[in-house]
Amino acid sequence: MGPGKVNEDLVAERRKCTFDTQELTYIIDGGKEETQKRHEVENIVTSIPELQDPIPEEYMSHKEKYENAVRRACYVTKALKNFVIENATKPGPSNRYRSAEAATKDVTPMALHFSMFLPTLLGQASPEQQEKWVPRAVNMEIIGTYAQTELGHGTFLRGLETTATYDPTTEEFVLNSPTLTAYKWWPGGLAHTANHCVVVAQLHSKGVNHGVHPFIVQIRDEDTHMPLPGVKVGEIGPKLSFSTANNGFLGFDNFRVPRDAMLMKNAQVLKDGTYVKSRLSKLTYGTMVFIRVMIVTDMAYYLSVGATIAIRYSAVRHQSKPKENEPEPQILDYVTQQHKLFIALASSHAFRVTGQWLWTTFVKVNKALTSGNADTLPELHAVACCLKAVTTRDAASMVEACRMSCGGHGYMTSSYLPILYGITTAACTYEGENTVLLLQTARFLVKAWEQAVDRKAMTPTVAYLVGAGDQRGAWSSQPSGITRGMQQVAAGRVRSAVEALQKHVKSGMAYEDAWNAASVQLVAASEAHCRAVLCEVYWTETERLAAASSRELGAVLKQLAELYLVYWALEKGGDLLLYSNISKTDIAYLRDRYEELLSLIRPNAVGLVDAFDIRDEILHSTLGAYDGRVYERLMEEALKSPLNAEPVNQSFHKYLKPFMQGKL
Amino acid sequence: MGPGKVNEDLVAERRKCTFDTQELTYIIDGGKEETQKRHEVENIVTSIPELQDPIPEEYMSHKEKYENAVRRACYVTKALKNFVIENATKPGPSNRYRSAEAATKDVTPMALHFSMFLPTLLGQASPEQQEKWVPRAVNMEIIGTYAQTELGHGTFLRGLETTATYDPTTEEFVLNSPTLTAYKWWPGGLAHTANHCVVVAQLHSKGVNHGVHPFIVQIRDEDTHMPLPGVKVGEIGPKLSFSTANNGFLGFDNFRVPRDAMLMKNAQVLKDGTYVKSRLSKLTYGTMVFIRVMIVTDMAYYLSVGATIAIRYSAVRHQSKPKENEPEPQILDYVTQQHKLFIALASSHAFRVTGQWLWTTFVKVNKALTSGNADTLPELHAVACCLKAVTTRDAASMVEACRMSCGGHGYMTSSYLPILYGITTAACTYEGENTVLLLQTARFLVKAWEQAVDRKAMTPTVAYLVGAGDQRGAWSSQPSGITRGMQQVAAGRVRSAVEALQKHVKSGMAYEDAWNAASVQLVAASEAHCRAVLCEVYWTETERLAAASSRELGAVLKQLAELYLVYWALEKGGDLLLYSNISKTDIAYLRDRYEELLSLIRPNAVGLVDAFDIRDEILHSTLGAYDGRVYERLMEEALKSPLNAEPVNQSFHKYLKPFMQGKL
Repeated sequence: MGPGKVNEDLVAERRKCTFDTQELTYIIDGGKEETQKRHEVENIVTSIPELQDPIPEEYMSHKEKYENAVRRACYVTKALKNFVIENATKPGPSNRYRSAEAATKDVTPMALHFSMFLPTLLGQASPEQQEKWVPRAVNMEIIGTYAQTELGHGTFLRGLETTATYDPTTEEFVLNSPTLTAYKWWPGGLAHTANHCVVVAQLHSKGVNHGVHPFIVQIRDEDTHMPLPGVKVGEIGPKLSFSTANNGFLGFDNFRVPRDAMLMKNAQVLKDGTYVKSRLSKLTYGTMVFIRVMIVTDMAYYLSVGATIAIRYSAVRHQSKPKENEPEPQILDYVTQQHKLFIALASSHAFRVTGQWLWTTFVKVNKALTSGNADTLPELHAVACCLKAVTTRDAASMVEACRMSCGGHGYMTSSYLPILYGITTAACTYEGENTVLLLQTARFLVKAWEQAVDRKAMTPTVAYLVGAGDQRGAWSSQPSGITRGMQQVAAGRVRSAVEALQKHVKSGMAYEDAWNAASVQLVAASEAHCRAVLCEVYWTETERLAAASSRELGAVLKQLAELYLVYWALEKGGDLLLYSNISKTDIAYLRDRYEELLSLIRPNAVGLVDAFDIRDEILHSTLGAYDGRVYERLMEEALKSPLNAEPVNQSFHKYLKPFMQGKL
Repeated sequence: MGPGKVNEDLVAERRKCTFDTQELTYIIDGGKEETQKRHEVENIVTSIPELQDPIPEEYMSHKEKYENAVRRACYVTKALKNFVIENATKPGPSNRYRSAEAATKDVTPMALHFSMFLPTLLGQASPEQQEKWVPRAVNMEIIGTYAQTELGHGTFLRGLETTATYDPTTEEFVLNSPTLTAYKWWPGGLAHTANHCVVVAQLHSKGVNHGVHPFIVQIRDEDTHMPLPGVKVGEIGPKLSFSTANNGFLGFDNFRVPRDAMLMKNAQVLKDGTYVKSRLSKLTYGTMVFIRVMIVTDMAYYLSVGATIAIRYSAVRHQSKPKENEPEPQILDYVTQQHKLFIALASSHAFRVTGQWLWTTFVKVNKALTSGNADTLPELHAVACCLKAVTTRDAASMVEACRMSCGGHGYMTSSYLPILYGITTAACTYEGENTVLLLQTARFLVKAWEQAVDRKAMTPTVAYLVGAGDQRGAWSSQPSGITRGMQQVAAGRVRSAVEALQKHVKSGMAYEDAWNAASVQLVAASEAHCRAVLCEVYWTETERLAAASSRELGAVLKQLAELYLVYWALEKGGDLLLYSNISKTDIAYLRDRYEELLSLIRPNAVGLVDAFDIRDEILHSTLGAYDGRVYERLMEEALKSPLNAEPVNQSFHKYLKPFMQGKL
């Protein structure tokens, strides 16, 4: 097995794949043209000569990592300028730009410029303000970020302490951080990279607090990069991952910005300090929902990365000898290993198609919104909240299962899996903490339940609540039957939570306290609703995709989707027993069927991850590379350690030897 | 809230605690004397002046981190020499030395000297060999580690490739690493710290392979620390945590060691090369089981660290405004937060008492073993395997839940929670990968089931299998009833798995293939057995402890244990519905009771973590310190970043400015 030669187990796996992996790649990308465009972008990124690091980033100091990341971000962004500009005007889920970003191993210090700064300008700046700022931002003449969260305030937006007080004599806002807990804390790139920043602050004018509003604020001199007087800015320190995201803090001491720093597409402050209320405040929901749509799609991608690494490694790794006279089998042949990995594979597909569905829904709702109709917004908001929460949690725990399925080697940074977990689990917290989001969906579900009881007209995602519990119908272990069962579970969970809530209210509790007391059950109801949506959307979309595909691929897509349904039916078996007509025999059947599906998917496992088509330069993994040279790569990476450059480390002479000789 | 002053929320929490925290501390330590001894050790460690780091470790490069860790390890070990020697002769679970070790933030490069090298010498060296090596090891004149795992071989011991071939002409063994995958890979301290090492290798003599045996091998010159000729040694690179553990690789090229390098307490090779078989090969199980006992106790400790940090932070942190006219509540008042945290608290106690119980069992079995009776060994082995697997998995996922319950701040390294997770999750893989261990327990359970069907006499932990399924008796939601229910679940799961296995065998599969096909269910059976053991041991021990405690503390201990039982009954509700007589009404009752227990524990939450009595210097957490100065500490730590020492980083001039000006 010399350099460049592909591991023979992987060769054998690829030979036995029953479908055309390229056909699936086109589906994943959204069409052949998209795949080609992605390849074009990847070819540009991977051929930038300046991207060679002096040593692998993980050996560098915290400061060196940042400096290295700035260098990489500048060269990558420069190379991709045309694509970036094209993307800024055509948002939506796409594999194209994500792959390009992945050329940095961890998170780039410029990430928030594109994901938050620019979208906020586009969404909240007035036309004149857009004219002033958007071209400079798109051309990256300035680098921005988005500063909302404070040291003492995250979830509760109204609790932010940073103030922007209007001074009509100079027609300026005066920004202040009145306490330590008022310091902005967390924004990526804020520490030493951005020179501009959207700051969310409490707006005071004429002695009245009008609540939080966004302001565009220059924080560093464009020429010298020195923080402007009255600005205190720096970095918040190391984290689980995001080691190069340059997350920062920011405080203001009577820092003055002109009146037009306030982003005035919606609310405004006139020259004399008169506050003009927003007419379309619901529109600001749009950006938030948009970001959650993108997160669902990101999770599909992270799962594809985790599955690619773990499945290829499991095909190369041999271990144990169940049969004395046969060689050690590939660990991918252990059914417990398949149990850990194939659900990650299936979930990646489930999240991708659900992300697409959510995007389509979002576009429809947004169109209605701009023509003044906000009727469908609550449902979109509710489904986006729970989908963000459930997909991030599943992705994090499944990526972690992928890591652990690689044994000790999955614990190595060079496997990429520890970094991937750090990036994925962060999504459980940012852009709406998961428990908080599930409780927001629960508010919608409680209302929907009351409407369902009254037999009112229901919006699509909760239509199943009508008549739930009246009659259950026979259980069916067919995919559509499982989907219906998951809806019965959701309805049952919603009903139980509502009953718990009502019981507490009847006992004399204030509604808020009753809500809190029932919140564990409300969260469970919200999760159950989300699982029902995921199952329904994934199965429906799979049937559509399978019908449009070759017979061979169609069969595989259906196996994956059925695996997903059966997996969750078994995970939620207790709820099915409580709220559906499933029998003990049905559960035994599902266990058998689950094992059967694992063995059906097994021969195509490597083909399925090959179809994700993630280049080695973007995968960053010793364990997951296309050629499967796992052990060679592990050793090659280890030998790059600066500690290995010297046979004896200086600490021996300084400490270890005196210590062993009793002379320390 | 000035420096040193305790946060007022924590003051209020401590005031309302209903029990004497010191009484509980004594129980946790195993008696007042043990607590005092621990304090003595901690006072020594925390007053070592040389332990001041130049900058916090997380800002250093990989190499600097190692050098810093060697310095710390030398000074700490020097200061604790007397305790170390005392400990070496008196093994068993104890809080005393663990706390001392925790004075290093991550894992020390000398960890394996004490946890593996020394115990192996004591367990496997002959009396003459012990005389030669043990005093030098105890005095730390030499530093050792234990090298078993290879780049290509972990779980399957018999698959190791390193060879030790006996040469009778020189009375030496010749060590070789015939392939890349034969390189030792992972041992802590091996890379640049240890100069000696126990090497597990395939013993060849007179042309016969006698299987794997341990050898004590000097790998570096004691004076110069240079690797000896024929030894290739270095480090394997960065990992999720263990950044200072100095994990290494090791290869041999015709490296010769004397005949008495082979540890000969059991098997021997005579001068002429004659191999003398071990008479008591079961004894070697002892070390392995001992280490698993210690791991269960470690998990209890890690959970106490996680719970301390997250519960104190949750008492200090205020967020959201459920009631418009009241201030933002402490997040510890949210029931969803209690749901995440109190199970970690309860599990710490559950694992501690189970670890003690396992230790007592181990001592008994060991005594029987030395007098030649190995009858009770299989049961001990089976229960140690599944307890290691389940407690590490629970600890890792609950530590992670603690981290995520602290929102964004839990993602900061300065919270200590990311490092703690890295350390805890590693235990799921080392010393027996969890799935492999659960399947080992399953082998025992399948045999036990067959004996139970035949109504044979059963060993204590599986006595519940006898007559399981014959009659179930009415469900009771009392603790003892839940424990019985968990045993019914275990019996039901074992039965289902055995039936699946038999069905596959009857269909014509080889037994090994049938085992593999049924392995997902076998793992589930093994986990269910372990949960039944944990519930039974925890509840029984709690009743005993509560009876011996003050009324106030006794009540709290029982609340925690009942919470644990109800939590797991609800988690396994589906299995209870399948395998016990529980009704839907019972489950609704358990949900109510669970919420009630959360609210009973809430006022004592801070008192319960105070009772773990973990000093700030050992907790290493900005979020969890005793005084609750959370925000001040976060900012103080951030300001130590070398990046914050300069207002403008050099990368601005080098890359960022040219990039923004289009001149890069």
